[in-house]
This record gives sequence, structure tokens and C-alpha cells, in this order.
Amino acid sequence: MVAALRRFVLAGILAAAPCLTASADDAERKTAEGLARAALSDDWSYKFLESLTSEIGPRLAGTAAEARAAEWAVGRLKAAGMEVHTESFPMTAWERGVETAAIVKPAPQRLVLTALGGSVATPPNGVEAEAVVFRTYADLLAAPPGSLTGKVAVVTERMVRTEDGTGYGMANPIRRAGASEAAKRGAVAYLHRSLGTDTHRLAHAGALNYAEGVARIPAAALANPDADQLERLAALGPVTVHVTLTPTERKDARSVTVVGEIKGREKPDDVVLIGAHLDSWDLGTGAIDDGAGVAIVAGVGRLIAALPQHPKRTVRIVLFGAEEMDYSGPAYEKAHAPEAAHIMMVGETDFGARRVYEMRLPAGAADNVFGRTIASLLPPLGVLLLPEPARRGGSDIQELALEGVPVVSLSQHGMDYFDIHHTADDTFDKVDAAELAQNVSVWTALTYLAAETDVDFRALANAASKP
Amino acid sequence: MVAALRRFVLAGILAAAPCLTASADDAERKTAEGLARAALSDDWSYKFLESLTSEIGPRLAGTAAEARAAEWAVGRLKAAGMEVHTESFPMTAWERGVETAAIVKPAPQRLVLTALGGSVATPPNGVEAEAVVFRTYADLLAAPPGSLTGKVAVVTERMVRTEDGTGYGMANPIRRAGASEAAKRGAVAYLHRSLGTDTHRLAHAGALNYAEGVARIPAAALANPDADQLERLAALGPVTVHVTLTPTERKDARSVTVVGEIKGREKPDDVVLIGAHLDSWDLGTGAIDDGAGVAIVAGVGRLIAALPQHPKRTVRIVLFGAEEMDYSGPAYEKAHAPEAAHIMMVGETDFGARRVYEMRLPAGAADNVFGRTIASLLPPLGVLLLPEPARRGGSDIQELALEGVPVVSLSQHGMDYFDIHHTADDTFDKVDAAELAQNVSVWTALTYLAAETDVDFRALANAASKP
Repeated sequence: MVAALRRFVLAGILAAAPCLTASADDAERKTAEGLARAALSDDWSYKFLESLTSEIGPRLAGTAAEARAAEWAVGRLKAAGMEVHTESFPMTAWERGVETAAIVKPAPQRLVLTALGGSVATPPNGVEAEAVVFRTYADLLAAPPGSLTGKVAVVTERMVRTEDGTGYGMANPIRRAGASEAAKRGAVAYLHRSLGTDTHRLAHAGALNYAEGVARIPAAALANPDADQLERLAALGPVTVHVTLTPTERKDARSVTVVGEIKGREKPDDVVLIGAHLDSWDLGTGAIDDGAGVAIVAGVGRLIAALPQHPKRTVRIVLFGAEEMDYSGPAYEKAHAPEAAHIMMVGETDFGARRVYEMRLPAGAADNVFGRTIASLLPPLGVLLLPEPARRGGSDIQELALEGVPVVSLSQHGMDYFDIHHTADDTFDKVDAAELAQNVSVWTALTYLAAETDVDFRALANAASKP
Repeated sequence: MVAALRRFVLAGILAAAPCLTASADDAERKTAEGLARAALSDDWSYKFLESLTSEIGPRLAGTAAEARAAEWAVGRLKAAGMEVHTESFPMTAWERGVETAAIVKPAPQRLVLTALGGSVATPPNGVEAEAVVFRTYADLLAAPPGSLTGKVAVVTERMVRTEDGTGYGMANPIRRAGASEAAKRGAVAYLHRSLGTDTHRLAHAGALNYAEGVARIPAAALANPDADQLERLAALGPVTVHVTLTPTERKDARSVTVVGEIKGREKPDDVVLIGAHLDSWDLGTGAIDDGAGVAIVAGVGRLIAALPQHPKRTVRIVLFGAEEMDYSGPAYEKAHAPEAAHIMMVGETDFGARRVYEMRLPAGAADNVFGRTIASLLPPLGVLLLPEPARRGGSDIQELALEGVPVVSLSQHGMDYFDIHHTADDTFDKVDAAELAQNVSVWTALTYLAAETDVDFRALANAASKP
């Protein structure tokens, strides 16, 4: 398969290189162009994702399912021509139990919700109490201490749909901090409208953070129509709800990061790192979050590994573990801080499987020969190279970014990402093969060029930051 | 509210009737036009539906929830100016219990499904067996006797999306008859891909019919992505599934039909009947199926009741019970066969809340003065009057149609109806207020004219049926 692929890539490269007197830079450009073209008509990543989401399925951090996924990924990356190893780290695993809820008064009816990751359990028979509905999170924060004693606090503020996920980011405190804010005011449980833009009876999972020194109360996200229902009924009179959540925690769990490398032919210690996270929430099968990202970066590694010669720098494909439980970035940075100065560029793909439409390079790189080369390849791929630099990475790489590693970021269309993200609906059928292939194409051209170039992105960024 | 409404309708009528020397037919036409216009800008039905789906919620046939809905509806129809009574009939009620399923091998993962209405239960701990996946229902029917002994039969044929629901009708045997066909071949349980056009992790409920003399095996519908997953895994090797369903049956239950009437001022025994069903499946809150229909016909009754004088014939608004469990039409026909000859026209609305775009009248009526009058009102409402007659009613009225009652039918846009129908997603937020109001508008004009006219639709139909 790799041999057949090599012929395919070479054919693409040769077809794109009619001029035999081209310069070295021209050769790089032609190779990148050939890679990008090969990726566009290649369904390897799509099939990879199909297999991951079908044969492994959900892969919650720290569970046997995540370990199975890692074992599976090791085999796949090896078969794709990479040198593969794993890196394990300790974590506290959390697993969902029973999660049922209902409106008890005024009219009995079921509520759809899902426990927040890290939530404590209710008593086995649940809690039953009056619901106090806040239409905005600010309303909850404005409630005086003691005002929610014995109540179930419910925040029904809706996240805003945006192309780039800004609405999710801004709504995040509702999920992350709401339980402790409700507990400070005496609540016995906390419910919030799912951070999601759909109108389906599917709740959106996600982790919370309990504040130090505050009672830990059970917390869950309501499906959007169920939050609507509580809003309507609360406007008519008192509403009593019953909530049962029985999640469990295991403090001695471990997660694992899977790493595939194509060693640099000239500077093997200099690394271009691209990654995605292998763990997923448990409700769906983690197709768009982040099976797609894993399939994309694995596809990049396979295409680059199949080149006639490795790029000058090492290409490192990192499949992070336990991102959804907030461990991946810190664990990787802790283990790799000593080599951070040798990580020449880092990028992450964790925003679904829709097309890439914008690229941001490290500061100073867009104006450079590197930026001009990549810019020349992007029009047929439908991607804009923005002059503004990438400012920060996602959760897998933000600690590396803080260490000064230059960051590249690609923007994908995300208007419907939060319709599916963290729900049972995150399944393989939601992914479009051609859109996924476009991602592989863009990432492959970029990663190859970053690994082949002699440009020092860190030096460029330092120069750019001087007044 | 009714007094205020009367002024509003009158204002519309007067505004539309500049010519004081108009004929009687002109007066009917102007009244119908005024009613249609009033309905378009009226949110009474929308608020009615909001209240039904919020304050009552789901209302499964033969349960306390359906009885609560009936009591609620009696009050609402009375307040809307109708004479109201109820008609009760016996039925076997069926209620959902636990319903969980999982792929056990090759990789443990949850399956989303829902028991079919009328299904027997599995043992309390469920059944575990190899799944035999048939990609078409015909493949199941072609399987020889004994070939499924001890297996779980799974049919993954997908219903076809169409505007008019033809795809649902043609796929119906998969749900209705599949369990008995699987049992004839030895299966211990039957699963099928939901009769639904969405791609969500929500299963579509619906009733089955067990064949006489065949073992009754538990049966359930899989969410579409879960059917996909079983297809993919079965193509790779053996798949074991575990299914637990614990529904229960109660043979001495009763359902109730709620009837609101506006007695005819000249021919009170002649009836124009329009209906919808008040019961719903239990997973959602029955907003599009068929809360919308109930809200539409209730809105029609309210507008006609508020006229300065009642139409010549009686307008009867029927909110049927237990349609989803197949009782409504037969029960009504059984109770009303003696008066069938006096039911001048019957219509039903049970296809969601999207706009009406086509109307079919009883045979012969489109060419008649009645048809010409209604045709003159339809262009601003965006509805085509088709020359072909309505041929049959829906499940609430098909028995009356077989008795020879002339049928009218309105077609609503239905391309997305089966994305939501019979799922937990059937909630109020899916309904558009303006589209619902357009339905009320069209039905009100039609119902009023049919009740005011002297045209005998049965005689027209008889004449039209002669060679």
C-alpha cells in the first residue's frame, strides 16, 4: 500500500514538475503541490476514520476503550510508514452512570440531560427539588448567597452560533464554573442548557471545574428543547424536577499519547509537530471530535513518509490522549519541555471535518519565502493565507505555545460544528469525504514545507515582536 | 377573547367587502376571505400548541397523560366557543420500559434504539445473540425458515425521503411486519433501521403488528447512525448484540375522543368534520405529530364559532384518541356509522406544521361553484387546487371514507417531516408560527365554505363516478 502510494505521489510530483532546471525552492514547491494534489483524491484518511469510529467507537479518556484506540493507532501509524511509540501519563478517569431526569410538577415528563465530565453523583435515588430557572448566567451570578438553598439551579442561556466557535468559548463558564457558582448560593444540583447550537433532544457533554473550597454538587447539561421546556413552564409557575446522576471516578487511571515520526534527513532533532486528540467523549463515536483530526494528521504522516526522501526536519504526528478531560496539553508539555526549543512549529486540528478556509502562520512567516511558497499553493485549495499571525494553539498545544513554540493555525468552517460536538450525534456519517481530504491536502503541503525549509520560525517571530 | 376576536374577524370581512350589493355567494366568499386573512395574522393556534406540548407534554394513548390532554382540550375548545363532549372507547395500552442495547463484540459500544409500540419484552436481563444484518427487507423475506434460529435479525434498509411521505408508506412493512417475518425464520429479536430520514442518534417509535400464529419476539427501531454502524461492522465479521426491552401492556385501558361543535343554523344534522389526533408518542411532546393538527383544527373551530352567525351545516372538530396505536379511525367509525350519511365532508390534518401547498376536493367539487369559490381564495395563500379528487383519508378518517363520506385532503410540505416524526425531537421548537397559521387559514376557509354551501358533495361524487 505504501509502495503503491509512493508511485502515486511521485506521479503527481512529476506531472507538476515539467521544468527540469528548477531551483531547490522550486523542487520543494513542486513536491508540496504534488502532495496536496495526491491528498485531494485519496480516501485513506476517510477509511481510517471509518475504522476508528466503527471498530473502536467511543474512547473516553483513561478507559479500556481509549487504550484499545491507542493500540489500534499504533498499528495504523506503523503501517503508514512512521516510527511509532507511545507515552503514558497518570490521570483521574471519570465514567458516566445512570443519568435520568424528569419534570415532576406541574406535568410529569422526561428531561434529556447528560452529566458533566467530573461531576459528582447524586444519591442513588436522585435529588428532587424546585427548579430555579435563570435565563442568563449573569442572573445566576447576581443571585445572593443562600437564595438557592435546597434548589436545583438551572441556567438556560443559549450559546451563540458563530463560524469560528467564539460563541462556545464565551459560553464556556456556564458549563465550567456554573456548578460551583450555584453551590455557593446553596443549590443542591446544577443544570444548564447544553453548549450546543442544535435543536435536538441530545445533550452535549463536557467537563466542569469545581472551585476550591466550595461544595461539589452534581451537574448536567440539558438538551436544548428541554431547556426551552423548563423556561416555558417556569414562566407559568413552580416547577419541581428530579435528577439522578451516578457517575464514578477512578484516580489511578492512565492515558496514552501515540506518536508517529518521520525522522528528518538533515536535522532529526528539529521537529515540526502536528497533532489531534485520540480520546473522545463517550456519547458518540468521536468522529468530528476529534477522530477527524486524528485521521487528518495520520494522513499527513503517511503521505510524507511515502516521499522518496524524508524532509530535512523531523515530522512528528501526535495523537494526544485525555484532551477532553484537560490532561493532554499539560502532560505533553511536562514531558517535552526540555526539547521545546527544538520544536520548530506546532499545529493542531480539533474543529471537525469541514473544509479549511483560512491559514495563519507564525509571526513573520507570511512575508517570508516560506509564506510566499505556501501562498502560491493555496488558491486551488480554497484557502486564504492571512497576514495576521496565529496567536495561540488549541488545548493540546497551548502549553507548548506558551513555551514559545511557533504556532500555525488553520480555520475550518464551523457554523454547524456545535450542532454535533460532544453529543451522541458525533458519528461517522456526519463526515464528508471530500472535505476531510481537503484538510489532509492543506496540512500535508504546510507540514512538508515547514519540515523541508531552513526558515527559523522562532527567529522570525522574535524579530517580528521587536518594535 | 372571543368577543375581541369577533370584532377582528368582522373588521377583516368588512374590509374585504366593499360592494354592498353582493350576492349570497359573494357574501360567503367574502366571509371565507376574511376568515382566511384573520387566521394568517393570528397566533392562537401557536399558543395553543405551546401550551399543549409544555403543560401536558407527551400523551401516549390510554395513559393518564392522554386523559390529562383530553381534559385540557375540553377546556380549551369550550373557551374557544364550541359545544364540547367526549367519547370514550376501550383499548389495550402499551408503555415503554427500559430500552438499552449494545454491540458486545467486536468492540463494546452502545446502540440507540426504541421499542416498537406493541412489542413484547425481552427477559429482564435482555437477550444476547449474533446479529444477522439484512441490507434490504427483501433479503430478510428471502431468508429460509430456520436460518435465523437463535439470532437477532436486523434490517438496515433505509426509507426514502419524499415530499409526500410515500417513502414512509412504502417502508412501513419493515416496522409493521418485520418482527413476525424474523420470528418465522427463528429469530429471537428483531431490529430495524428507524423509519426516519434524519442522521441523528434518536430512534423513531411506531407500532408493529404481530402475525397470528407466529411467536411474538421483541422488536425495536435503531437510530440511523446505529444501523450504519451495524452494517459496517457486520461487513467485517461476526457481531454480537445485547438488547433489553421491558415494555408492558394493559388490556383494560380506555382512550377518549374530544369533540367540539358549532351547530349548523339551518341543517344541524349535516356535519362537516375535520380532525386531528390528540394522542402522541411518548418520546417527544407530540408537537408535529399531531399537536400541530390539533392546534389547526381547534383554531378553525374557534374562528368559525366567532362568526356573527353559524354556518348552515354543523362544523365538528374531532380530536381523536389513540391514533398511534391504530384505534382512532375504527373506534370513531364504529360509534358513528349510523350518521355517516349525514357527514357531508371529512378531512384530517396529520402531517406536521409546514405550509399547505395543494388541495384536493371530493370528486366533482373542483369544477363546481364550490370549487371555483375556494379556488379564488387560494392564490394569496400559496395553495394549488388540483383537479384530481382526494382519494382517501388518513388513519383517523379512512373508515369514514370507506363508508362513502366525501374526503378533502390538503398536502403539506413534508420533506423534513420524517426527520422528527415519532422521535424525542418532536418538540415545540420545531414549529414555525407563520407556517402553522397558514394551515389554519386554509382549513378555516375550506371548512367554513363546506359548511355554508348547499352543494351535496356525495351526490357530486356519485355523479362523477358514473362513466
